[in-house]
Order: sequence, then C-alpha cells, then structure tokens
Amino acid sequence: MVEGRKAVSEVFHSDMEVVTILATKAFQEKEKPPFGCDIISETEMKKLSSFTTPPGVVAIVKIPENASGSVDFNAPVILALDGISDPGNLGTIIRTADWYGVSHVLLSENCTDFYNPKCLAATMGSFIRVKPVYGDLKKLLTGKNVYGCYLTGENMHIHTFRYPAILLIGSESHGISADLADCVKTRVTIPAYGQAESLNAGIAAAVVLDRMVSGHTGI
Amino acid sequence: MVEGRKAVSEVFHSDMEVVTILATKAFQEKEKPPFGCDIISETEMKKLSSFTTPPGVVAIVKIPENASGSVDFNAPVILALDGISDPGNLGTIIRTADWYGVSHVLLSENCTDFYNPKCLAATMGSFIRVKPVYGDLKKLLTGKNVYGCYLTGENMHIHTFRYPAILLIGSESHGISADLADCVKTRVTIPAYGQAESLNAGIAAAVVLDRMVSGHTGI
Repeated sequence: MVEGRKAVSEVFHSDMEVVTILATKAFQEKEKPPFGCDIISETEMKKLSSFTTPPGVVAIVKIPENASGSVDFNAPVILALDGISDPGNLGTIIRTADWYGVSHVLLSENCTDFYNPKCLAATMGSFIRVKPVYGDLKKLLTGKNVYGCYLTGENMHIHTFRYPAILLIGSESHGISADLADCVKTRVTIPAYGQAESLNAGIAAAVVLDRMVSGHTGI
Repeated sequence: MVEGRKAVSEVFHSDMEVVTILATKAFQEKEKPPFGCDIISETEMKKLSSFTTPPGVVAIVKIPENASGSVDFNAPVILALDGISDPGNLGTIIRTADWYGVSHVLLSENCTDFYNPKCLAATMGSFIRVKPVYGDLKKLLTGKNVYGCYLTGENMHIHTFRYPAILLIGSESHGISADLADCVKTRVTIPAYGQAESLNAGIAAAVVLDRMVSGHTGI
C-alpha cells in the first residue's frame, strides 16, 4: 500500500503493477490527479491509512517478485543496514541512498519491512529505484571492503576511502551487531563537536555517504 | 512532558525544574531507574503518552522562562529553520545540531513547537543543550552571512565557507520561503548523484552542517 500523492504518482508512472488507486472525494476535487481513482469515504480512508492524518490517496501495488534483482558488488558504493527497526527511518535512508545514486541496499533480516506503508511513504517515491536485498549480512559482507560506522574509528573527514565500498550502518540502540563486526574492514567515525551521544542512524548514513560518494566522483 | 528513559534521566541530572516523574510498574521493575517515580497504570500511561507504544516513563518539566538566552552571532555556525513542521524531524535536527556543537537554533514562528513531546523525544536529550530561538527570521537574519540550502546553488563540496556562518534550511514542501530569500547571501546545494528529487530537511541540514563545521575547525 503506497500512500500520498507523490508516491502514488510515481508508481503510476513506473512499471510496477498497480491493483487499484483509492482516494477521498476531497482529494480528487482538490488535487485533480492525472490517474483514475475509486472514491472511498473519509472514514474508510482513515481505517485504511497508516497515518493519523491520511494523505487522501492510496495505491495498492503488487510487490515485484524479483524486487531486488542481482547485486552488483562492483558498484562504487553500496549501503548495508543492520537492525534498522523504525519504518520512517528506513524510508528516509532509502530516499538518501537514491539521492546518492546507491541502487541496492542490503538489509539484515531483523530490519523493518521495506514494504511497510510508513517506510514507503518516507522514501518519497525512491522505493521504485532503490532495491532492497534482505539476507544474511554476514554472508553478503564477508571478504568485501566494508566500512562500519562506529562512535570510534578513523575520522571519515580525512580518511581516503577505497572503492568499491560498502557502508554498514547499525541500529540506533545496539549499533553494528557483534556478529558482523568481523566483516568490517575499516571502522569510521563522524567527529563530534558537541555533546550529543550519538546521531540518528539515518543522519549518520547520510553524512558518511556524502563523503564516500563525493570522494569517489571527485564532485 | 519528556518521555523515555534517556530523556527523563537527562532532565533529572540537568538544572531544569522537574515537577514530577511518572512511570509504569513494569518500567520501574525492569529499569530500576535512579530517580523516584510515581507509579501509574499502563492505561493511564497510554492516555498520557504521545506514542502508540509508550516508553513507560514520563517527566513533567517546567519550560525554562528564558529558554533561549541571548544568541551569540559570533558563534562559528548557527542553524536557522524555516517552517519545519514535523516534530520528529525538528527533534532529529536539534540532536544533530548538538552533535556539531551548534548551541542556538533560530526558528521561524511557523516551525513546530520545540516543546512538543515527540520533538523532545527525538532530540534524545539534546533539548537540554541546544537553545530554541523563535522569532522573525527576516529580522534575525538580515545583514548576516547566511547560507541557504537550495536545490541549485554553489556545490557545497567545493565551496569555501566563511565564518561566522548561519545555515538556513527550509521546509520539505515549500523550501526556504520567498520572503527570506533576500536574506540569503550564498545559495548552496548538495550535489545529487541519483534520481531522488530532494532530501529530507533533517538529512540536508546534517550533510551541510558536517561540511561547514569541519571546514571551520579543520578536523
């Protein structure tokens, strides 16, 4: 279930299989969307939506059978997420990955569901372009050039990254799991200038990606 | 109202005036907090809490009368936010500001309330250190060295920032308001390498702050 005008519009224009689009009368009259909608009542929309304030339009879309495709481990930068449990956070990370041209995101099996409506909404349509790959991260990461984001490690402002690189981000509460620490070739850290104990996982992913991706392209 | 163990613990150890701390029996037995709590039922907590899954402990704290104090415009980096309406987003930005040593955040009057419980929770305790200054941004920013974050502008990866600097971030939906555009001395942009149309406002703030603050300290 995809919610909100932008996301629905994106799936409508993608090659995803849209089963139906449902909207409230108010939405249709105000927004005059370019896609056909079945009208449902405000009450029905409230029941259906995963938001307290429903955006007024939802699309029911088939999850692609081979959503992830094959991962190109020669891509300059890949993102791997360990135990990200908040759907809004995961969605924001997917959107950021899309901004930085990261086409695949590896997810540990205890990450929240990529297809959770709150996650999809937070991606702002990027779920169409960024492919989720759920699996055993230990298997996927072993032997690769993995950078792990920790509270202590090499200062990522002055570190010279090597490519292809995989950036591994752990959960807010537990960090990178002990089990995966062996897969990390280089621990990197975002220098702190103030007193916050940590950064939100999505913020940390973005700040390191910005350095890794610009370091690769030189732009 | 401050929710969650970490935030309650931070206010308990701060010089803020705590009126009362309320917790469920389950929280007290599991967490054995170092602060005294009045016990309330799970049902009462559910009614009180602003979360679907209440963290089990809340503190009622007096809003400091002069919360913001005076703004030191000679600080190397100050953050200004225009129309940030999502409390979770604002809280994450406050936490990020704290990480980067930004002590004051200027907020347009249409930003969401800093003291919204969801915002406070998302700051992870940083609301104690970062001071909110609500006001007329036009007055506060005029004549200052203001960098505005836009979708087009100078590439912030190669721009040499001048200090003291103020970073102005606009809302997700409307960007920096037209009214404030005149205050912006330099438009900066985060280069896009993929196809996402934009970044979350909190992500954008963090990525630019990381460059501005490291550019100032050289670390």
